[in-house]
Amino acid sequence: MHLLGISCTIGEQLKIYVKDLKNMKDGTNLHNFLLVLKKEIRSFADKPGNYLSLVLSDKTGGIEAICWDDIDKVRPFDEEDIISFKAKLSFWKGEPRLVLEPQSIAQLSPESVDWKEFVPSTDKDIDKMTTDLFKLIDSVDNVHLQALLKAVFGDKDFMESFKNSPAAVTHHHNYIGGLLEHTVSVAKICDAIMAVYPELDRDLLISGALLHDIGKMREYKWKPRIGVTTEGGFAGHPALGAFMISKKFPSEFPEDLKIRIYHMILSHHGEGEFGAVVPPKFGEAYALHLAEYLDAKLKEFLSIEEKARESPDKREWTYAIPLGRFIYSGEKLDKSDKNV
Amino acid sequence: MHLLGISCTIGEQLKIYVKDLKNMKDGTNLHNFLLVLKKEIRSFADKPGNYLSLVLSDKTGGIEAICWDDIDKVRPFDEEDIISFKAKLSFWKGEPRLVLEPQSIAQLSPESVDWKEFVPSTDKDIDKMTTDLFKLIDSVDNVHLQALLKAVFGDKDFMESFKNSPAAVTHHHNYIGGLLEHTVSVAKICDAIMAVYPELDRDLLISGALLHDIGKMREYKWKPRIGVTTEGGFAGHPALGAFMISKKFPSEFPEDLKIRIYHMILSHHGEGEFGAVVPPKFGEAYALHLAEYLDAKLKEFLSIEEKARESPDKREWTYAIPLGRFIYSGEKLDKSDKNV
Amino acid sequence: MHLLGISCTIGEQLKIYVKDLKNMKDGTNLHNFLLVLKKEIRSFADKPGNYLSLVLSDKTGGIEAICWDDIDKVRPFDEEDIISFKAKLSFWKGEPRLVLEPQSIAQLSPESVDWKEFVPSTDKDIDKMTTDLFKLIDSVDNVHLQALLKAVFGDKDFMESFKNSPAAVTHHHNYIGGLLEHTVSVAKICDAIMAVYPELDRDLLISGALLHDIGKMREYKWKPRIGVTTEGGFAGHPALGAFMISKKFPSEFPEDLKIRIYHMILSHHGEGEFGAVVPPKFGEAYALHLAEYLDAKLKEFLSIEEKARESPDKREWTYAIPLGRFIYSGEKLDKSDKNV
Amino acid sequence: MHLLGISCTIGEQLKIYVKDLKNMKDGTNLHNFLLVLKKEIRSFADKPGNYLSLVLSDKTGGIEAICWDDIDKVRPFDEEDIISFKAKLSFWKGEPRLVLEPQSIAQLSPESVDWKEFVPSTDKDIDKMTTDLFKLIDSVDNVHLQALLKAVFGDKDFMESFKNSPAAVTHHHNYIGGLLEHTVSVAKICDAIMAVYPELDRDLLISGALLHDIGKMREYKWKPRIGVTTEGGFAGHPALGAFMISKKFPSEFPEDLKIRIYHMILSHHGEGEFGAVVPPKFGEAYALHLAEYLDAKLKEFLSIEEKARESPDKREWTYAIPLGRFIYSGEKLDKSDKNV
Amino acid sequence: MHLLGISCTIGEQLKIYVKDLKNMKDGTNLHNFLLVLKKEIRSFADKPGNYLSLVLSDKTGGIEAICWDDIDKVRPFDEEDIISFKAKLSFWKGEPRLVLEPQSIAQLSPESVDWKEFVPSTDKDIDKMTTDLFKLIDSVDNVHLQALLKAVFGDKDFMESFKNSPAAVTHHHNYIGGLLEHTVSVAKICDAIMAVYPELDRDLLISGALLHDIGKMREYKWKPRIGVTTEGGFAGHPALGAFMISKKFPSEFPEDLKIRIYHMILSHHGEGEFGAVVPPKFGEAYALHLAEYLDAKLKEFLSIEEKARESPDKREWTYAIPLGRFIYSGEKLDKSDKNV
Amino acid sequence: MHLLGISCTIGEQLKIYVKDLKNMKDGTNLHNFLLVLKKEIRSFADKPGNYLSLVLSDKTGGIEAICWDDIDKVRPFDEEDIISFKAKLSFWKGEPRLVLEPQSIAQLSPESVDWKEFVPSTDKDIDKMTTDLFKLIDSVDNVHLQALLKAVFGDKDFMESFKNSPAAVTHHHNYIGGLLEHTVSVAKICDAIMAVYPELDRDLLISGALLHDIGKMREYKWKPRIGVTTEGGFAGHPALGAFMISKKFPSEFPEDLKIRIYHMILSHHGEGEFGAVVPPKFGEAYALHLAEYLDAKLKEFLSIEEKARESPDKREWTYAIPLGRFIYSGEKLDKSDKNV
Repeated sequence: MHLLGISCTIGEQLKIYVKDLKNMKDGTNLHNFLLVLKKEIRSFADKPGNYLSLVLSDKTGGIEAICWDDIDKVRPFDEEDIISFKAKLSFWKGEPRLVLEPQSIAQLSPESVDWKEFVPSTDKDIDKMTTDLFKLIDSVDNVHLQALLKAVFGDKDFMESFKNSPAAVTHHHNYIGGLLEHTVSVAKICDAIMAVYPELDRDLLISGALLHDIGKMREYKWKPRIGVTTEGGFAGHPALGAFMISKKFPSEFPEDLKIRIYHMILSHHGEGEFGAVVPPKFGEAYALHLAEYLDAKLKEFLSIEEKARESPDKREWTYAIPLGRFIYSGEKLDKSDKNV
Repeated sequence: MHLLGISCTIGEQLKIYVKDLKNMKDGTNLHNFLLVLKKEIRSFADKPGNYLSLVLSDKTGGIEAICWDDIDKVRPFDEEDIISFKAKLSFWKGEPRLVLEPQSIAQLSPESVDWKEFVPSTDKDIDKMTTDLFKLIDSVDNVHLQALLKAVFGDKDFMESFKNSPAAVTHHHNYIGGLLEHTVSVAKICDAIMAVYPELDRDLLISGALLHDIGKMREYKWKPRIGVTTEGGFAGHPALGAFMISKKFPSEFPEDLKIRIYHMILSHHGEGEFGAVVPPKFGEAYALHLAEYLDAKLKEFLSIEEKARESPDKREWTYAIPLGRFIYSGEKLDKSDKNV
Repeated sequence: MHLLGISCTIGEQLKIYVKDLKNMKDGTNLHNFLLVLKKEIRSFADKPGNYLSLVLSDKTGGIEAICWDDIDKVRPFDEEDIISFKAKLSFWKGEPRLVLEPQSIAQLSPESVDWKEFVPSTDKDIDKMTTDLFKLIDSVDNVHLQALLKAVFGDKDFMESFKNSPAAVTHHHNYIGGLLEHTVSVAKICDAIMAVYPELDRDLLISGALLHDIGKMREYKWKPRIGVTTEGGFAGHPALGAFMISKKFPSEFPEDLKIRIYHMILSHHGEGEFGAVVPPKFGEAYALHLAEYLDAKLKEFLSIEEKARESPDKREWTYAIPLGRFIYSGEKLDKSDKNV
Repeated sequence: MHLLGISCTIGEQLKIYVKDLKNMKDGTNLHNFLLVLKKEIRSFADKPGNYLSLVLSDKTGGIEAICWDDIDKVRPFDEEDIISFKAKLSFWKGEPRLVLEPQSIAQLSPESVDWKEFVPSTDKDIDKMTTDLFKLIDSVDNVHLQALLKAVFGDKDFMESFKNSPAAVTHHHNYIGGLLEHTVSVAKICDAIMAVYPELDRDLLISGALLHDIGKMREYKWKPRIGVTTEGGFAGHPALGAFMISKKFPSEFPEDLKIRIYHMILSHHGEGEFGAVVPPKFGEAYALHLAEYLDAKLKEFLSIEEKARESPDKREWTYAIPLGRFIYSGEKLDKSDKNV
Repeated sequence: MHLLGISCTIGEQLKIYVKDLKNMKDGTNLHNFLLVLKKEIRSFADKPGNYLSLVLSDKTGGIEAICWDDIDKVRPFDEEDIISFKAKLSFWKGEPRLVLEPQSIAQLSPESVDWKEFVPSTDKDIDKMTTDLFKLIDSVDNVHLQALLKAVFGDKDFMESFKNSPAAVTHHHNYIGGLLEHTVSVAKICDAIMAVYPELDRDLLISGALLHDIGKMREYKWKPRIGVTTEGGFAGHPALGAFMISKKFPSEFPEDLKIRIYHMILSHHGEGEFGAVVPPKFGEAYALHLAEYLDAKLKEFLSIEEKARESPDKREWTYAIPLGRFIYSGEKLDKSDKNV
Repeated sequence: MHLLGISCTIGEQLKIYVKDLKNMKDGTNLHNFLLVLKKEIRSFADKPGNYLSLVLSDKTGGIEAICWDDIDKVRPFDEEDIISFKAKLSFWKGEPRLVLEPQSIAQLSPESVDWKEFVPSTDKDIDKMTTDLFKLIDSVDNVHLQALLKAVFGDKDFMESFKNSPAAVTHHHNYIGGLLEHTVSVAKICDAIMAVYPELDRDLLISGALLHDIGKMREYKWKPRIGVTTEGGFAGHPALGAFMISKKFPSEFPEDLKIRIYHMILSHHGEGEFGAVVPPKFGEAYALHLAEYLDAKLKEFLSIEEKARESPDKREWTYAIPLGRFIYSGEKLDKSDKNV
């Protein structure tokens, strides 16, 4: 890594993760580098002068930072830059906060940065999930669908990008690896559906599950932070996914199969008001939608529940805004009665 | 079997199933017994006099029947009776219709009847599903939940009634064995959820899945046809299920577990507008709701799709009223490309 | 024209349009050919035997037809065939009905048929509207958009198909030429919007208006009757239109313009629940949606109002099912007070 | 009363009610005890150090309190404790605020506290309403319903708890005595309904009115502040009410009457989306729902209107968030034109 | 009474009410006069020729009537005429039907008819309700409101028309006297509200209740059958009522009171989607809306319930289309346990 | 202009517009007069004492203002007053803020004020739009409608008030001249509709367009700021417009035309839930609604888009709260490719 605009070596500097700061002692002096999420110049409420209020982050979370004095001496940087700085750790209402030394702040050159250190990532094992994905591909018997899946996921660049892609900005699976995680989960639920409804075509259902969200690779970007691309905002991932797959069909791919794959990608959100281009019109498309719905909603609920339980308030009931209702955040179930 | 009001032997009579009638020759004379679903006296449109218009059925389906003449000579019977009759088979627009001999009609004594011959039943294997159910019970490690499930499903009378209960009147799983089928399916989908979300408590989730719809045993009746009971209409199956389970808790069952079981039964419909007494407020309750929703909606869709495909019209698009949209009823996917 | 299956000459036969039948005398014998919309074999209500009940049509409307006797002597034909027949005109409740001679019925060979004689068509002048369309294209100043529009509408085969395409099956503009009519109307309303909101980019707005519904050319078919295609049902016209336009962009077409054209096609329905793939996200896309909405809704209202007024009932208020309310179908406004 | 953790006598201390503080002089020194609703440690915005920000309350309302200095010398206490303290009254934007002396703060022992002094209570006369309730019970002619009501409300412990119970946390009747007040109001409106619709069964309607909300006794707690219980959040008051009544039916209570009482309790919210377990299915249940709806909605509206009028802003129109619209908060109607 | 177009005396003819026909003997010959609700010429389904199918009615109900033969000899008449005829009573599926003698049919002169004999009317006592109305007026203390109510209801022509007006075409109170009945009921419920919420202004509330629906006098007509007027369809009764009251204010009526009366008339439907011009914005207007809602909904429910119980089917559950759900139509509650 | 309460001359004072302040130098001393939109006394967060926080505005925008010291020396004034003051300009986060001198503040006498200087106004040319309006009136051929329009808009006082009236408080056209601007726009869109749907009655449509919103003249006031009047809040502009027009009809105006004009005013919002008194029931009323909808929605969208683009954030996507979704606020389309 090297700094922009000033000559400097930070080779010996150890990265300290944001999540570890809360375990360090109040008043610790440290040297660190973090992504700038928010930057505001604020005037003092009742005396002349300004200070700098920042939100900094890495892949483990965000932290407030303040620069009280001499802010005219701070070298220029913007939101979405990564900065190096010296600071003193200072707790406030039990939460850590960084007080920066103005002249120590320096912007890092973006090319020198390993961005994955600064963007939240799945806590699942990406390699393990990749293996699961390819096992699912191998389990597809239909020769055409097998060939299509290999053409898509066998492409190294595609797969590299697919593994990193988030599946959302603010909802479920909104982190690096989220698309892979969600895709494998949906396919596994589809496998369970096959056990209950064997009349469905497993090859079609699993293929649809693996392909349904590939458009998110172009709908979202994650560098320097997770956001929506221009074409993502203008077309949405179902239409983008259909465009992408149209370039991947092997020659001599049956027309009636092609059109079903398009349909499963375009319809997986179920209803127009929830983003489906068309509603599902055959069993496998509807089953895919239900599996997708289950995984997305459950992931969201469990994330909210986890956050509610982690709150220091320890309330029994927490209002969950995205759900529009109270959920239980009291004692977890006693697990000691397991008959092992 | 014996007839009401007349002395008669029909021991040698072979039951002919409704679904087999369409393969018999026009004009065949036959002797059969069927359940009366509808009975109307209609006047001829443009001449004096009345005829009898019936809908008759057994577990394989329904058929129209007509009695043109001498209807004053027909012995009395009502809807929901089972009648014995002689008739001539007569096709109309490709569909079979029975023309009854008025004086041959006789009501069967209800006690002598094997009612399961006359009410639609699951096409799955009830014994196999029962075995699956008990395997699921055995897989629950928590000693209290294990004891509760044994107290409920180990009761012979309960289990006999549970196996026969339908899970609906007009929607998904509306046949004998439907409750068992739906219950096992939901529990299997919950098992798949555990593979994806291992942080959930499997014992609680599987127990909730097995118990969530037991109230339907008191909400519905199936003899002489599937319908809603008085208490079913006044209280609904979630509240009835909670009442039922309250009598089954073993002594020393933990209070916090009890209240979670109640909650899973009361909340499994997800939202108040879809019949939930309260919305799901912890992860396992929400996961159960999603699994229940998936199974119910997919079963409904697949039934509608199957019916649409069976229609003689052979249209590519069929309007599905319960779904409020067109679904595809054209050619099924060619399955010959399997790479076996 | 020639008949299928029998050798026959009907060269001298004059086509009589359905709308003219109501002005002919009861009992007239006639020889005609019409499209079969519905065909049912019905049994007589209270005597043995069957008759044939048909709905026949040409581009001017539909009429009931009956074949009372000897229906086993009728040569085979199906719905969507065109048949030649002899019949007697017979009025019923003031409405004309055809009583067919069974042995006169013969199917026409589809290739020999001018299908536009049998499918409803716009009552506007297609040539005039085509001229209007090209004037609008010429008025676009932006060189890239001008080139794109010429590439699309300058293609003879495309234009031939575009001119014939309906814009719906049951709603507004559901007839041959409906797509052209709707397209030109929307573009004209967009021109009016420009007069009020000159800050919008006219070139973009007019181009979007002309291109927004081209996907309907593949969503609908009109031969032998207006219906939805397989790909139309599976993908919908916004996604199909985006696919179609992707093949038409001239090389060196600016990317930011391309993405806006895609967006206008994908978003013109306004909201997901009304079929938009994404909602409109810039002013010209939103203006296009509003113009499209205005034309579609007003056309539908005026068609319903016209039909209500034509009803023989002469009621002041008519319940309009597609609108979900009563509309006024009483006296039209006296127009004699014009100050000319 | 006595303090926790320190030996102290406050026998001579006079309780000063929050609502009276606004009439006292700025700068008054006082000694008081209040319930802690909120407690936050806040750091100063632009200097080192923390202060304590509290919300304190008693039954007459809430007030902000601040402890600026030496907060490390404050003895420990938590939200929902009652504390004794010395403070100086200090007005801010016309509103009173308490500045506490850090070392004066002491927690009171919960058992020594009369909690009703600290929780808002109905401004109606509880004894008068209790009398009204028993008159209504006496007016029920049906011997079974009479016996049931006596079994329920004749139980001293039940009645004591019923009289104190609130009917909500944030909506209508959210104070001690709210359940009693709402119950009597609903029953009175039901009596008015009887005058207009004498075909209804008054005994059933009045009994349903008196019993419909008893589940709220277990859904809500009011000590130390009004909130939802664990079982309340998991089951809701309609299901809890049905459980509670099931233990109270006299032996030989007619089954058809029992099931109607259950139904009225379970259905009184009218629609599933508003909390009904089942919708009302007979006239008395529907009438009860309408009376309940009227009382709840009107109480809420009048509370909001009263608060809007009390606002110092004196605006003519006030946006009422729970109603989603502006209401009139201008001049009240001149009442001087009464013709007395 | 006299007949149109033919000389005839029917002075001695006794009117037989439709509701009494079901108690007369099959085959009875009778001479009667009834209002023609529907008139259709139908062709026989499977033989040449037409017959006449009518629906006839008087204030007690409707009945089907048929004229089989010689319909060319029937003298001309239209829907909404009153006809005199000879007929034979003939039962069909237990329901009476009239078979008319073609040449006996004759139209009555509209002026000679007492129309109230042919339009359904309230079964309450109109004089009694009128007395109640004036008692309510007398109970209003405010001199201005008292004067306004006297100006409105003291006008003889107004009152005559008010007493006859229906309050709906197909919903609640859709009969002569319905407006009076509904008005008095709403005012009585408002009186009950005053007992519970004495802080409301009784004079304003009762006056609003009495005036809220006067626009229905111009929205509906009842001669020859209940329907919507032209101005009723174009403006609606809230706007018409506001117009009507604007002509009735005594001079020197306070402006702030006037505007409140307007508001109560314009807002009584509560929400725009249910017909309110504006939503209620002060307490008395909201209370009026709730009372109006209660009376309208309960009347509708009770009418549906009564009809469901009267159905010969004797089903326990009846699907009530206007309510969108099943209601209970089983056994009524045993009333023998009254403790009288 | 003169000040209230103090003798003073400010004749030589030049008004400085708020929008120009951002181009002035930090620290500039200035003397100005502005409308007070908000006035709050705030205490310092962590020291004793209060300061004054104001929002001041003129027709070009609003600005924050602070008075730190000696606020007890400030002469009294209220929100909605216009004050004269001396201040120093001080930038904060790039935004200008005024620091007032306490003793310089003085209230201006309302009568001496040109209020249009302080309320936002249309940026269109009012005279030009007035000319357009009268051209539209002249184009109406129907003698009765022509006379009506002249009676309305030919009234000088009416026209003066009409030209100044805003068309909303917070939505589209919420500024002086907004009603005129919206009215002319709607009429122009109606003219475009006539080109596409010539079967509509142009005279009726244009007249309806010109008259549809006249009730807003009484619904809104704009002095001292734009707000809702008492009668506006109680009756709404459709009902007020109908009242107003009822006084303007020339004698001998045809009844059927009158009722249509009423209807177009009452129905122009389309649906009850969007404020229509009745929904549109004939073609011209529906066309007017659609034109009105188009203009209102497009104006709102374009205002939001403009504001989003002006934000200093320069984000590509901006969440538009009134639209409930993200809109594009990135680069505008390159306009250099015009083929001029």
